[in-house]
Amino acid sequence: MSRTIVASARREAVIGFDQPFCVIGERINPTGRKKLAAEMVEGNFETVKKDALEQVAAGATMLDVNAGVTAVDPNATEPDLLVRTVQIVQSLVDVPLSIDSSVTPAIEAALEVAEGRPLVNSVTGEEEKLEAIMPLISKYDVPVVAISNDETGISEDPDVRFAVAKKIVERASDYGIAAHDIVVDPLVMPIGAMGTAGRQVFRLVRRLREELGVNTTCGLSNISFGLPHRHGINAAFIPMVIASGMTSAIMNPCRPQEMEMVRAANVLAGNDADCGNWIRTYRDHAPAAANANAGAAPAPAASSGGRRRGGRAARARG
Amino acid sequence: MSRTIVASARREAVIGFDQPFCVIGERINPTGRKKLAAEMVEGNFETVKKDALEQVAAGATMLDVNAGVTAVDPNATEPDLLVRTVQIVQSLVDVPLSIDSSVTPAIEAALEVAEGRPLVNSVTGEEEKLEAIMPLISKYDVPVVAISNDETGISEDPDVRFAVAKKIVERASDYGIAAHDIVVDPLVMPIGAMGTAGRQVFRLVRRLREELGVNTTCGLSNISFGLPHRHGINAAFIPMVIASGMTSAIMNPCRPQEMEMVRAANVLAGNDADCGNWIRTYRDHAPAAANANAGAAPAPAASSGGRRRGGRAARARG
Repeated sequence: MSRTIVASARREAVIGFDQPFCVIGERINPTGRKKLAAEMVEGNFETVKKDALEQVAAGATMLDVNAGVTAVDPNATEPDLLVRTVQIVQSLVDVPLSIDSSVTPAIEAALEVAEGRPLVNSVTGEEEKLEAIMPLISKYDVPVVAISNDETGISEDPDVRFAVAKKIVERASDYGIAAHDIVVDPLVMPIGAMGTAGRQVFRLVRRLREELGVNTTCGLSNISFGLPHRHGINAAFIPMVIASGMTSAIMNPCRPQEMEMVRAANVLAGNDADCGNWIRTYRDHAPAAANANAGAAPAPAASSGGRRRGGRAARARG
Repeated sequence: MSRTIVASARREAVIGFDQPFCVIGERINPTGRKKLAAEMVEGNFETVKKDALEQVAAGATMLDVNAGVTAVDPNATEPDLLVRTVQIVQSLVDVPLSIDSSVTPAIEAALEVAEGRPLVNSVTGEEEKLEAIMPLISKYDVPVVAISNDETGISEDPDVRFAVAKKIVERASDYGIAAHDIVVDPLVMPIGAMGTAGRQVFRLVRRLREELGVNTTCGLSNISFGLPHRHGINAAFIPMVIASGMTSAIMNPCRPQEMEMVRAANVLAGNDADCGNWIRTYRDHAPAAANANAGAAPAPAASSGGRRRGGRAARARG
């Protein structure tokens, strides 16, 4: 039973097979958000603060913090910016953080100032990357996201991706890092481009859990890239990865449909004791609202009730 | 690869591991619908007709037809009523039917008039039931839903339910009925009453598929009985059972949220070629509608875009 412990100064969270799904809020990330990037470069953190508060209010377990604004020399500028962003976020909210950067000095600088036990996002199976990141993971005793690609790129063969993940877990062990501190990202491909992308992930997650005993995560919305009504695909993907054994995802908690599926899948996976969180969240839910975008006629209450069928009914048998 | 073939006079449908999830519309069933029962007894089939048309329009693959109005002597009255209901429904829509009754003479009478190759719903592991139903299944060469309970009732032990299903498949074989004509219902308990109900079903469905090679079904909404906002639980349960290998469900297709999850799970399971059905259904989907019942602030478009993270970005490494 892998338990990955993350913490802020005041709050601990556990990523684990018997835990509610860990929602890592993805919003604090200037990649692809030009306006946010420009603000951060100018030292304006108002959007960062708003994103932090909104994501926690929406139910994020953790927040990913990325300060990767495009720069001529990220090694020179990103460490300070990431440090500042981490400090602002942790002063505002008390959920654990995920320190997200491709710049090793930025990760190290952020680890110096981060309170509690943050997650590091990420290492890959590339030698250079392993040698840069693993000593930090060991030195600061923090867990890390391990992305299952290496020098050869992202394999389309899930067995190769499994082998890369296994290699990272083994290499981590050489640095004294336990498997429960590795959260593997099996890499989610867009289903619109690769029809087997879903089945690949479901199988990989199951193997990673059963054979390596590790927790898993993914960049959730990648699955729906290029398709219309992406949130419907994302919403269905969540219960499917949870049923396959995935324990966390980097996603947008401000989407009610996706968060509803996280909460319902927690109930169905047996990780919401006595359905407590579900009942607290939805006890006053108005059925009419749920049906607001209905195209079909609303069904009478009886149809959704405890339905009985012939075989189980206590009526006379023929 | 189990393929259960069902058909109306003009249309065939296949229940199978490589097929879109088979949605068996549950609405034509007077159980718990007093008004519908009263209408049917009076020979008024307007609601039946409306339910038939609406369910097919909403995307039902098949329609369940049950005429189990409460009666002093169902053996005397139900055969004629079921025959009439089947005739009305099959004259109106061309999807295959599921003949649903606990009254054996009613099933036989309906099989006499049903066109194509209907599904029979259902048999159990009870001796008396097996001996009544299996000869009909063999005689009319039709598939049957096998509910995994027997004389001892519904076991809370999923291994016992598996054993009952296995017994039914073996007994069917004695009658010359192939496993691909048995669609096992592993029995879904309410998750609000039994916290392990979800995990039980997921594991049972996987075993039924891998060890017995049979298709599976369930009365879907049973899972959410007693909980608030049942449709959210039902909606998440669909992708989870599909990820576990379930191939059909008896459910209400007139619920857009549930049908959206069926369509998305078909995409993700690799059973919607080139995402064709998804794209046709949702290409004009307005994001605002999907967010109609949002409690949180709407997210800017960038947040749902193809998100990249440090580890995968082609930026300078530290």
